[in-house]
Amino acid sequence: MKIALSQINYHIGNFESNEKKVIDSIREAKKQNADLVIFAELAVSGYPPRDFLEFSDFINKCLESVSRIAAECRGIAAIIGSPSRNPEIKGKDLFNSAFFLSDGMITSVHHKSLLPNYDVFDEYRYFEPNIVYQTVDYQGKRLAITICEDLWNIGDDLLYRGNPMDELFKQNPDMIINIAASPFYYEQAKLRKEIYLQNVQKYRLPLFYVNHVGAQTELLFDGGSFVINSSGIMVDELDFFREDFRIFDLGEIERVNKQPERNEPSKIALIHDALVMGIKNYFTKFGFSKAILGLSGGIDSAVTLVLAVEALGTANVRSILLPSRYSSPHSVTDAKKLAQNLGSPYDIIQINDAVKSLNLTLEPLFRDLPEDIAEENIQARTRGVILMALSNKFGNILLNTSNKSEAAVGYGTLYGDMNGGLSVLGDVYKTEVFELAGYINREKEIIPENTIIKPPSAELRPGQKDSDSLPEYPVLDALLYQYIEHRKGPNELIAMGFDEAIVKRVLKMVNTNEYKRYQTPPILRVSPKAFGMGRRMPIVGKYLA
Amino acid sequence: MKIALSQINYHIGNFESNEKKVIDSIREAKKQNADLVIFAELAVSGYPPRDFLEFSDFINKCLESVSRIAAECRGIAAIIGSPSRNPEIKGKDLFNSAFFLSDGMITSVHHKSLLPNYDVFDEYRYFEPNIVYQTVDYQGKRLAITICEDLWNIGDDLLYRGNPMDELFKQNPDMIINIAASPFYYEQAKLRKEIYLQNVQKYRLPLFYVNHVGAQTELLFDGGSFVINSSGIMVDELDFFREDFRIFDLGEIERVNKQPERNEPSKIALIHDALVMGIKNYFTKFGFSKAILGLSGGIDSAVTLVLAVEALGTANVRSILLPSRYSSPHSVTDAKKLAQNLGSPYDIIQINDAVKSLNLTLEPLFRDLPEDIAEENIQARTRGVILMALSNKFGNILLNTSNKSEAAVGYGTLYGDMNGGLSVLGDVYKTEVFELAGYINREKEIIPENTIIKPPSAELRPGQKDSDSLPEYPVLDALLYQYIEHRKGPNELIAMGFDEAIVKRVLKMVNTNEYKRYQTPPILRVSPKAFGMGRRMPIVGKYLA
Repeated sequence: MKIALSQINYHIGNFESNEKKVIDSIREAKKQNADLVIFAELAVSGYPPRDFLEFSDFINKCLESVSRIAAECRGIAAIIGSPSRNPEIKGKDLFNSAFFLSDGMITSVHHKSLLPNYDVFDEYRYFEPNIVYQTVDYQGKRLAITICEDLWNIGDDLLYRGNPMDELFKQNPDMIINIAASPFYYEQAKLRKEIYLQNVQKYRLPLFYVNHVGAQTELLFDGGSFVINSSGIMVDELDFFREDFRIFDLGEIERVNKQPERNEPSKIALIHDALVMGIKNYFTKFGFSKAILGLSGGIDSAVTLVLAVEALGTANVRSILLPSRYSSPHSVTDAKKLAQNLGSPYDIIQINDAVKSLNLTLEPLFRDLPEDIAEENIQARTRGVILMALSNKFGNILLNTSNKSEAAVGYGTLYGDMNGGLSVLGDVYKTEVFELAGYINREKEIIPENTIIKPPSAELRPGQKDSDSLPEYPVLDALLYQYIEHRKGPNELIAMGFDEAIVKRVLKMVNTNEYKRYQTPPILRVSPKAFGMGRRMPIVGKYLA
Repeated sequence: MKIALSQINYHIGNFESNEKKVIDSIREAKKQNADLVIFAELAVSGYPPRDFLEFSDFINKCLESVSRIAAECRGIAAIIGSPSRNPEIKGKDLFNSAFFLSDGMITSVHHKSLLPNYDVFDEYRYFEPNIVYQTVDYQGKRLAITICEDLWNIGDDLLYRGNPMDELFKQNPDMIINIAASPFYYEQAKLRKEIYLQNVQKYRLPLFYVNHVGAQTELLFDGGSFVINSSGIMVDELDFFREDFRIFDLGEIERVNKQPERNEPSKIALIHDALVMGIKNYFTKFGFSKAILGLSGGIDSAVTLVLAVEALGTANVRSILLPSRYSSPHSVTDAKKLAQNLGSPYDIIQINDAVKSLNLTLEPLFRDLPEDIAEENIQARTRGVILMALSNKFGNILLNTSNKSEAAVGYGTLYGDMNGGLSVLGDVYKTEVFELAGYINREKEIIPENTIIKPPSAELRPGQKDSDSLPEYPVLDALLYQYIEHRKGPNELIAMGFDEAIVKRVLKMVNTNEYKRYQTPPILRVSPKAFGMGRRMPIVGKYLA
């Protein structure tokens, strides 16, 4: 039996485009004499469709799409993900389903049993868990069809009471198929392979896995679909971060007895590739091609610019240098040098006059009160107004350049440097931004050395340095990582060796600044715990605040 | 048996304050010879604690609080909500539990079976559903203890497969107790009473219901705890929108055979009271007392100001009038008149110079391109910068004045008039804002007549009216209501009689502006479907866009 894996970049709610890609893929598979072609979870709708699932009209569109795709399946079978309706009165209205299509029609429907509802996942919001298990017989083989999380309830800490594969296994299947929507973070591909390998080792069956690829706003799908044979050998992996299509012969893959060598990319290389894909897909799926950003001479905007240029092309990213009277001379020269290294367009706009005019406007109310954070924010917000004006006038999307460390402690001005349509580095700690800069410069100096070595500063008052009000970034980031990614409380953090005063101060900063993060742009998610849809916090909460 | 209902305004994560209120209430109940005092769901933590529940430290704090409260329960019993740990390896780590406290200790723990996971609810994100049922015997009576949603799987369209009260009923209880966290919307109190009455009619048992009161950022809890006797008579209701405490004698309530008369408040009166409570609690729980807002002379900012003054006091709300060259003369006079009617402080700041300076700053890049939305937004954003500067300088929280109709179609400037710490009217359609103004003026003219009768306008270009680019508000709001609150698709809307071209245009506006709503302040929720945590939409989605 020849089985094709089709790894596609879907677009949520873009039924026409999704369906065309699927049908093209079925035709290609047929041309190459495949017997079966496998698509991802909720392929027809794109993943995650979120509350579109509450629209009956949306479900109709999904099911109509599945019907038209089924009509293409003559002389070949296909497995494809779509929501389906629950005919029972009891329980939620929908299932998250895998449709088996053959002979030009839908021949069976298999529902997801384990519905992830943690971090970025909300599946129990929409779907009823499956409790009926049925394998499929096709061309003399028996297929156990599972959907993503269905294979993840394995190991020591079990999130669910049941295990759907245990049920399917009782029917003596010949292979496991898993269609998925498994979003990227820098350790996910590794973990995923371990989990699926555990399944193969447990059931001694070959496993075919098809994932999404491409970005849906903040959620990045890395692809990396694969085949493991029943001996536990990872026979082949599809590409990461791009669409791919490959056909495997079941007999041949079962005969493979040596694990092919693979270079595992580094964490920073993965983050780099994921972010470039994230920027690219956000723009194409939104129907935009051009970006704008404020280039300060600092490392965050420098790395953002390089990633944007890789994603959108040199000519499509316009940098605006917005020096003020507190900007050091090297800020402009470093920024110019980077834009010149990239050959990408830049302009310089002096903000002093506009800032002065705003300060004058406020003088009757500010009177002789001492300068403070209010004046600092006016500078950041003036830059924000100017960048948004250019975005509006020229139809460019403003890229936000804040990093995760800043977002965590609220070191940024709301409606100022926190503006943007998309946050590129909002899930990348400052220390990781430095690593990204090193990765970008791995062959030659693209980001000027001075941008990398100078002490980070917001340059909103004379001689300001980030370290005036924050712990040094290596300490801060280590602490934030334990608190945010690992949900360690103050006692645990102190026991780990962090200074008690710093722990208290930093946790308070994180929690009291929840109101700022509520209003930030969507953040490309590359870590196991990003700000945004995967981290849901009260705003007026009083815990550690 | 004498049973006390204690309806408390909790504060998420503020263990000290929550515990003190609970213990004070237990002491009061004891003084009044009550046998049992009932508190709300997740009382010790406040509701919803959201991802704080993922912190082991947070759960410890909840359980320590329950232990200290238990120590108070000598000569009296209490029922109180708290998260508890699931000792099993399989399943999620926590339960949403009701603790029965007596003899100075925890005598039993009862877990929630039905976990709401729709709209604003995320309970399956944290909790394992209960599958073990046990009544409690206390002073010769048998209590069936249930938690909120546990009693809601009744009627025609059943969301869950099981019904926990059916299980408990097998043990022949004498009464039903339901501890809840049931957030307000303008039809919720009515629906709630219907649902609980159906339970009483089904099981023929008296029912004691205790709800939260108070606001947790966007979620408003209206209180309205109640007692229904086994004949289905609503014996008493606790106050709405404020803390309350009452004691009932079981024998006496069972003898009531006539439904007490009650005045049901109107929808607009409910919304009014809910919003005032929402503003007040946001400020007190955040530790702020003073608000600022931009007062335009239009109806949205006028209604916002009145509500803020009711919540915070006349002297604590400062209005800023920010006329531009496109503002009509009546804008300033109407705004001044309102501030004067209220006796609340206001200032006038001319924005023309700052706008001119920003335009001049942009001239080298804008050149001779025609004026468009970019220039309009500069005005709105200049106002935003000025208001935020005042907020920063004087420690006032900026109130956002956008309404739901505008938020829906994206009629507002991001980082301009969409700024603010809290959106007061973001869940109130424009037509409802007019009704609120009528309600505010029910006894005398507070909001100037001219503010109410003039055609709505953003006043960002000469002679601009909202109706230039939007359908008339009664049509727009009716359409938005069907699309947002009832999830009707285009075909259904056209079948209902809405014009096809308007349907297409409005739905496209709603969906393409999701990116704006992603960055808006939290919105006080008064409808069954508010923007924010209860409506989760893809940003780059292509459905109806």
